Amino acid sequence: MTGQARFEPAFAGYAARVRESFAKQGAMALVGAVLDAVGPGGCSISLVPREALSQQHGYVHAGIVATIVDSAGGYAAYTLVPEDSTVLTVEFKLNLLAPATGERVVADGSVVKAGRTLVVTRGEVHAERAGTRTLVALMQQTIMVLRGRAEA
Amino acid sequence: MTGQARFEPAFAGYAARVRESFAKQGAMALVGAVLDAVGPGGCSISLVPREALSQQHGYVHAGIVATIVDSAGGYAAYTLVPEDSTVLTVEFKLNLLAPATGERVVADGSVVKAGRTLVVTRGEVHAERAGTRTLVALMQQTIMVLRGRAEA
Amino acid sequence: MTGQARFEPAFAGYAARVRESFAKQGAMALVGAVLDAVGPGGCSISLVPREALSQQHGYVHAGIVATIVDSAGGYAAYTLVPEDSTVLTVEFKLNLLAPATGERVVADGSVVKAGRTLVVTRGEVHAERAGTRTLVALMQQTIMVLRGRAEA
Amino acid sequence: MTGQARFEPAFAGYAARVRESFAKQGAMALVGAVLDAVGPGGCSISLVPREALSQQHGYVHAGIVATIVDSAGGYAAYTLVPEDSTVLTVEFKLNLLAPATGERVVADGSVVKAGRTLVVTRGEVHAERAGTRTLVALMQQTIMVLRGRAEA
Repeated sequence: MTGQARFEPAFAGYAARVRESFAKQGAMALVGAVLDAVGPGGCSISLVPREALSQQHGYVHAGIVATIVDSAGGYAAYTLVPEDSTVLTVEFKLNLLAPATGERVVADGSVVKAGRTLVVTRGEVHAERAGTRTLVALMQQTIMVLRGRAEA
Repeated sequence: MTGQARFEPAFAGYAARVRESFAKQGAMALVGAVLDAVGPGGCSISLVPREALSQQHGYVHAGIVATIVDSAGGYAAYTLVPEDSTVLTVEFKLNLLAPATGERVVADGSVVKAGRTLVVTRGEVHAERAGTRTLVALMQQTIMVLRGRAEA
Repeated sequence: MTGQARFEPAFAGYAARVRESFAKQGAMALVGAVLDAVGPGGCSISLVPREALSQQHGYVHAGIVATIVDSAGGYAAYTLVPEDSTVLTVEFKLNLLAPATGERVVADGSVVKAGRTLVVTRGEVHAERAGTRTLVALMQQTIMVLRGRAEA
Repeated sequence: MTGQARFEPAFAGYAARVRESFAKQGAMALVGAVLDAVGPGGCSISLVPREALSQQHGYVHAGIVATIVDSAGGYAAYTLVPEDSTVLTVEFKLNLLAPATGERVVADGSVVKAGRTLVVTRGEVHAERAGTRTLVALMQQTIMVLRGRAEA
């Protein structure tokens, strides 16, 4: 299984760097996103559904789901790039599978292939309610590595 | 050109219905989105970039761009469905082409094919600055029509 | 893990039905595809790389890779639909990760979510060479179930 | 409209180079593809539907449609890169809109954004029958430019 691939960070301070970058994203604060976990090639970001995040049926908007899973995939990639590099989303594709609702919505991003210039990730988003988890969205994403351009 | 296809709304009150639905989306208010235009098979939604919408480099977050262009595409589809129907995003794919920044970011959604159950749309997002427009994102989206289930 | 979901076929003759349908696909014979395995919610199809399948660098063409992984995902979905139903690809997204070359190229499709009207699948394509397997492509796909319309 | 963008080839021999590369693709001969047109930022490739290209319902297989539109998009990008460069498909997403059948199936690829490292293209596939054209598929694609690596 692809998911069992092991990745080695190229920069020992990768986790602190993700946390610093996350803190700079105004959009994460806006949607109430929390950075739950960071590891080599993986990142989890969650939020609590609320009215302000909703689409017309009252569920979390597909774009808000996209916001946390795009960041989760991007930071999963960011854990693996050298100290002098940053990352950028080239594109992502998101399937919405079930209403994003419940007590918490959790996005997990994981690296599938880490190339020198491009990193491909997968994302899964689950909704948690009363102890059960439902898969609500599935992502496939391409990230670009910008070398020699660390975040300011 | 596909973009020149003409579409006939199945419900005369299609524009008012889109405006009502838009008003129910908490996420549109959260990101400061404005519904600029609604026509048969098309919809435009814009926002003004600000710190609270940013990713780590200061540009509008890809997920926030996704939020307005997903809604623009979904509402483009919604203009064409019968009175007793609603729409849901099945999936979308978004390419990010340039930093979303400037005075205004405008998402245009347009229907390419309107089937009975599925509607396929395209989206383009432009950034406006000092009178110039830059294409910043490109979307391809699949929308599902739910018949016999008008929005409450 | 999503991949560990268990699915129940709705029609006991699901495997024979996939084999019959596969045999009707002229494109499978054209590319030399072999139906390696069919199970509830999963399907594997492989081919042997040869000059006639190549792109300009001599590797198997992305479209030929798409041909077997699209079919693998579609048949994975087909294992789960009722006897009176058939399936159709709505869309797929394919990332190419490494050159498709070697002794054999194997596409595995697996169902992630089986809805009444739409089924979402994932695909992975590996190249085998000298006992090693390399992930060469990753797919995310949407399949439509057409009820009351069994294949002739 | 994005489609009206004008692109300048970086290499005067761009059209001959596309024709040479096309001739090297075994997969193009296999599916009976014809290179109909090449221009700055655009390429058209067609085929004649036949039994050997079919899926189980008798229409041209989605993967075969993908084969010609992926090449059309890739060659559209290839018209714009320097003499010492080649191109590779990073990923594409294809929506199937109607059965690919009729007298001829034509794939048009066009560049939307030509970056230094990545080129984004769109593809449209039409089926021609008795003088009418039907849009059968829509693609959005990312191409990578490999500099300093001309095709052999």
